[in-house]
Amino acid sequence: MIERVPSAEGVLAAAKRIASLVTRTPLLPLDWQGRRFWVKPECLQQSGSFKLRGASNRLMQLSDAERARGVVAFSSGNHAQGVAMAAQRLGIAATIVMPADAPAVKVEGTRNSGAEIVFFDRETESREAIGARLAAEQGATLVPSFDDVDVIEGQGTIGVETGEQLGKAPPLVIVPCGGGGLSGGIALALPESRIVPVEPAGWDDMTRSLETGRIVPVEEPPPPTLCDALQTKLVSPLTFGALRDAGARGLAVSEAEVEEAMRFAFRNLRIVAEPGGAVALAALISGRVDAPDGSVIVVSGGNVDPALYARIVGR
Amino acid sequence: MIERVPSAEGVLAAAKRIASLVTRTPLLPLDWQGRRFWVKPECLQQSGSFKLRGASNRLMQLSDAERARGVVAFSSGNHAQGVAMAAQRLGIAATIVMPADAPAVKVEGTRNSGAEIVFFDRETESREAIGARLAAEQGATLVPSFDDVDVIEGQGTIGVETGEQLGKAPPLVIVPCGGGGLSGGIALALPESRIVPVEPAGWDDMTRSLETGRIVPVEEPPPPTLCDALQTKLVSPLTFGALRDAGARGLAVSEAEVEEAMRFAFRNLRIVAEPGGAVALAALISGRVDAPDGSVIVVSGGNVDPALYARIVGR
Repeated sequence: MIERVPSAEGVLAAAKRIASLVTRTPLLPLDWQGRRFWVKPECLQQSGSFKLRGASNRLMQLSDAERARGVVAFSSGNHAQGVAMAAQRLGIAATIVMPADAPAVKVEGTRNSGAEIVFFDRETESREAIGARLAAEQGATLVPSFDDVDVIEGQGTIGVETGEQLGKAPPLVIVPCGGGGLSGGIALALPESRIVPVEPAGWDDMTRSLETGRIVPVEEPPPPTLCDALQTKLVSPLTFGALRDAGARGLAVSEAEVEEAMRFAFRNLRIVAEPGGAVALAALISGRVDAPDGSVIVVSGGNVDPALYARIVGR
Repeated sequence: MIERVPSAEGVLAAAKRIASLVTRTPLLPLDWQGRRFWVKPECLQQSGSFKLRGASNRLMQLSDAERARGVVAFSSGNHAQGVAMAAQRLGIAATIVMPADAPAVKVEGTRNSGAEIVFFDRETESREAIGARLAAEQGATLVPSFDDVDVIEGQGTIGVETGEQLGKAPPLVIVPCGGGGLSGGIALALPESRIVPVEPAGWDDMTRSLETGRIVPVEEPPPPTLCDALQTKLVSPLTFGALRDAGARGLAVSEAEVEEAMRFAFRNLRIVAEPGGAVALAALISGRVDAPDGSVIVVSGGNVDPALYARIVGR
């Protein structure tokens, strides 16, 4: 049996499937250094990040029997909130496994959507094992955060919208990258565009994987990062394959560049970007990418604890 | 000679005229206390507030001779930035008269659009006199911040967009109100909707004018307010007339309610709302308006100094 891989057709079908469940986020113009760019602000998405797209696409395709048994997901927060919100809207019970050190704002958001939360210790426990055990006990369906065809195709709907809104494919799309579901999905949706996945420094396994042509993990130990949403130590063959086949090249940004991008988003776009959501913008304004006129920058989420945000923006 | 007053037809014409110069801001869903509302986030508008709309509509109708002599405006900041940006795009020289205590972020935004800035002392000098003198000296056209048919019709384009995006008129629109250009314009665009202009406590001259049926000024001395964008002491017959004819009733919100609304916008919508931009949202979440399902809340601007924002959001 040949397993299905994510495809452009799948992304298009996902865009139709989830249209009524998600917000069609605008393209915000950004005039910067004599060029006009477009920002796709998925921090304005319901649940506060793009993750609602993939979760909705996955959950809408469950059978009635699967829906009745519920879903399980593990996530530091954005996927948690996306799955919880999609499940609530579709009347599906959701259990979310979250690290004990997840941002409070993300725990609260997940709880507000009616999900049951199970905490684990990031240092000593395996979220995968806990999630798999819960799924087995309850007969529930595990919803992966990126290693899943439907999830990747759901995230790729951002690319479909962007193409429609511009009336053409942009020359370049700069995208935050954790497991690669978002950047891989967009690469499928916009095959004519150059895709640049961006990771936090020290967490650049997708960048190094694309350089070497095979999947390599994060070098241990990775440094601490404010980008809680992008702390993925190993990407998936599905996401890596989509980006490799698109000829994508990644890059990494520093913590200081991320903070500056959050301030830039506050001041120039009046959107709330969380650290992980701001890495693509950081790549642009730090000059690490020479982006041509008309390039698109994805700001992928805005779930950030107020005290941290105040510290960064008020500096 | 009968002077023209702002009209629904004028607003529709403005919407066509300025479409290519402004951002079509989205309607963001807000699920709150069992109802779905829609937020029109004009903080995402270019220049950081709705003021670009009215300024663009006014400036596009100047003759070539008028354009050559430039424009003058007085403003605490949002109108300043709107006029400066519209002027820059149309190749028109702009001089902006700003209070010496205007938020730094607004002064910077105005300067970045290439306008010349003249400061005045809010306590001892008359900005109207300074603006009129500059206009006379230069032969420039004065662009009022709200007492102008074209400006009011430009601001009203938010109502046109909202009706198009919903596919119908909303039952209720809650709108921040300083001089009433925004709320008056929207009232013209959406004659079937109930309009609620919202002011800061002690600056509720539009509310009291609508109650008494004639224009009354702010009661002196008005209290200090964080809502620098809404410190208007006397509304205009044009804006008052539009709201009175629509049967609008206003209300006032407290400073504490404004701060809570800014935090709410941060946490639940991931948009940056300035104090004056958040008063309509404050009216909703404080329970001062019983808004039916499908009501629209306008967040009118997001130009706020980072230190103040950090203090309010980090609390």
